[in-house]
Parts: sequence; structure tokens; C-alpha cells
Amino acid sequence: MSIANGQLYGIGLGPGDPELLTVKAVRLLQAAPVVAYFAKSGRRGNARTIADRWISEHCEEVQLLYPITTEIPFEDPAYVARIAGFYEDSAKAIASHLERGSDVALLCEGDPFFYGSFMHIYVRLRARFAVTVVPGVTGMSGCWTTAGAPITWGDDVLTVLPGTLPEAILTERLTGSDAAVVMKLGRNFLKVRNAILAAGLMERAIYVERGTMTREIVMPLRDKINSEAPYFAMVLVPGNGRRP
Amino acid sequence: MSIANGQLYGIGLGPGDPELLTVKAVRLLQAAPVVAYFAKSGRRGNARTIADRWISEHCEEVQLLYPITTEIPFEDPAYVARIAGFYEDSAKAIASHLERGSDVALLCEGDPFFYGSFMHIYVRLRARFAVTVVPGVTGMSGCWTTAGAPITWGDDVLTVLPGTLPEAILTERLTGSDAAVVMKLGRNFLKVRNAILAAGLMERAIYVERGTMTREIVMPLRDKINSEAPYFAMVLVPGNGRRP
Repeated sequence: MSIANGQLYGIGLGPGDPELLTVKAVRLLQAAPVVAYFAKSGRRGNARTIADRWISEHCEEVQLLYPITTEIPFEDPAYVARIAGFYEDSAKAIASHLERGSDVALLCEGDPFFYGSFMHIYVRLRARFAVTVVPGVTGMSGCWTTAGAPITWGDDVLTVLPGTLPEAILTERLTGSDAAVVMKLGRNFLKVRNAILAAGLMERAIYVERGTMTREIVMPLRDKINSEAPYFAMVLVPGNGRRP
Repeated sequence: MSIANGQLYGIGLGPGDPELLTVKAVRLLQAAPVVAYFAKSGRRGNARTIADRWISEHCEEVQLLYPITTEIPFEDPAYVARIAGFYEDSAKAIASHLERGSDVALLCEGDPFFYGSFMHIYVRLRARFAVTVVPGVTGMSGCWTTAGAPITWGDDVLTVLPGTLPEAILTERLTGSDAAVVMKLGRNFLKVRNAILAAGLMERAIYVERGTMTREIVMPLRDKINSEAPYFAMVLVPGNGRRP
């Protein structure tokens, strides 16, 4: 007698406040016999923390520990090889539960299909297993809501940029943007600030750290005098479009 | 004895599936003595329909009926005057409940601060009343999830464009975009299709209608042979960024 494969769920957790999970995400999380999540070695991780109140105490937990995060530059072939191997191993670990007939809920901060680590598991497993993805509130929605800053009006074009891009490209893409969000700050903070200034957007720019979470920080970017920023902090440039 | 003012809640409803409201949105909706929503005259409206299962039967409902929607071009001064008057009247109708001490939950499809009609009420009332905004899953997140299409990878830049823009601007902004979303299709559909083609993105473009709702439609844009599209349909161009 063969056992039917389990199903993989990619669960969008939203921006950080545990009440910003969707009803669907909570329903699937509470029913999941296995919950998997990415974390840095030695840490519980942000995803697991956000989901804490919704996870059944009887479920099995699968930690997927990043071998590296920001220590090696993205363009280094050594980074690509190590991270590719990590995603392969993670997919295998999840597949072993699915093959035994257990559903697996993989936790995803924000929205799974928007710059999510989940996507690297999704492309490796979608041909072999049923996958259901639950969209989540993005981190950027959480940040502009916390900032009280409507981001796009009327015909505004929104540009979303990873702070990992070179400064010249950031400046070029920001110049003439109606509204913009720069994500993935961390060690890119000074470069992003320079690009915002060069693009003439400093007066409108807002810095947000830990949006919707405890100890959140919102301030005009021009008032941020140090250059320390977590990787998930953001810079927002709200649009100025039509407001009848 | 004076009565304390009520509080205004801007409730993000998400992309359409009623299970994609957040836990916070549901909690605040179920407690609201007054629920307000925008709709076209003669219709219940999409927002009210999405929220249906979560609204208390004892609450008072306030319909805000658009005087016009797409009949007059946006650039026409007559449009601006009529829609501004409508937002003024809507803000007054909501304020009258707040002044009597009742909290009001204003329903917002998608995310309230992302191209939301709510923003026009927010800027009119935020100085006088306490306002809490609950971010929601955007319509575009719902569409790319339904399409099984991760939208941004690695260093991909995402450009979000309203289909209401002129064709030349759409083409210019789409050209060289890593990933793109074109919203607000409706009567702009042919113009958007032309711009996607001119920007060399037709092979990757996906058309999504009623994403996450019943009778949703997902198809390659090149296969859509008629030009009929609802206003809330979208075109997605998923990114091709780094995939270790």
C-alpha cells in the first residue's frame, strides 16, 4: 500500500505583527503536522517568532539554517555554490516529510512570491508535489502603513529596488520615480542614502525599521545620522500623484 | 457631558478571497458598530462582498456611492471637481458617525495605502480623528500567487504601473524593467498590450482577472484575443533574477 504524498504550503506571514497573518495562513498553520522555517545558525529566526502563537505544540519543526547570509558578496561564485547547495539540501529535507505523507508548512516572512527564499524551494519541488501558496501582507505595506504614508496616488508609478544594486543603478532608477521603496538595506544603507540624495528625493524619504513590530522606528531619512540598519529596514519615498 | 470621538479604521480586505483578510482586520471588522464602503450606484460593490462573512449583523452600514467611475477621463476638470466633491461628502458622512462617538470601519480592497480610495478620506480626516490603518494583501500579490509566478528574484527591480498612463510612458517605463505589474486595465487593455509588445515583454506577460476569487482567469497575455478586461484585472511580467 502506497502512501499519498503530503502537500507543501508556502505560508505568507506578513510584515511582523502576528495579527497580520491572514485567516487562511492561520488555518493552514494550525493544521500543519510539520512546520519548516529558515533561520540563521544559533537563532530562532524572525519567521518562527512571528508565527509563534499560531503553531500547534504537537507539530514537528524543521529548521533550515542558512550557511551564510551577508558574509560573502552575492556576485562571488562561492556564494552562489554554497547557497544553491543549501537550497538543495533544504528541498530534500522538506521532500522527505512530503514523501512520508506529511503536509509541510514553510514559513515565509512577508509575501512568499516577493523576494522570498521560499521561491527557491518552490521551483525545486513544484513538479513533484502539490504546492499551495498563501499570499501575505508585504513588508513594504507594513512599513508604509506604520509610517502613515500612502505610497501611490492616481497615476503614480511605484519602483521597488533592492539596496543590493550598485549606487549608479539605484540613482538612475530612483531619478524620476514617482514613488519608490528601497528594500534590503543592512550594509547597503550609506549607498542607498547617497542614491536618494543624488536623485533629489531626500525631502520625501522615510526610514522604517521593524515596521509593525515592537520597537519599530520611523523617521525622516535625513534625520538618521548613523548608518546602522538591519537588512529588513526600508526607505520609502511616497508618491505625489493626483489627489482630488 | 461630551462624548469622545469614535475612531476611524481603514481595513485592508486583501485581493478578493474572504480568507485573505488578516486576523487584525477580522477582529476590528467584527467589533465595528458602523461599516462604510465605496460602491457603484445600484451595486453592492466588491469590498462589501469580500467582507460579507466578517461583518456583524448588528452594525450600521454606510454606502458611499461613486458619482462616476470611468465615464469621464481623469484629466477632465469636471472629473476632478465631481470626485473631489464626492470625497468631501463621504468624509462628512463618516465624520458624523465619529462625532457621535461611534467607531467606523471603512472597507478597502487590497491594501489601503496602495492606490486606495481610502487615502482620500484619510487625508481629510486624520487631523481631526484617530485613524488606524490595517494593511492588507495587495491585489497584485493575489494575482501573482494565483498565477504561480514568483515576481521578483535577487536584485530584480519591480515597476508597478497604472494602465491609465499614456502608451508612450508605459512603453518607456516597461522597457528595461526586470519585473512589472500593470494595474487598472479596463478600457486601457489594448494600450497596455501594445506597450508590453513594444517593450519586448510579451513572452513573459501573464493576464490575470479576478485573482483569488471565484471565476478567476489566468492566461498568457499573448493568448488573450479579445480586449475586454475588468478595471481590476492586471498584467504581470515576472522577473528573471538570480536563482541559485
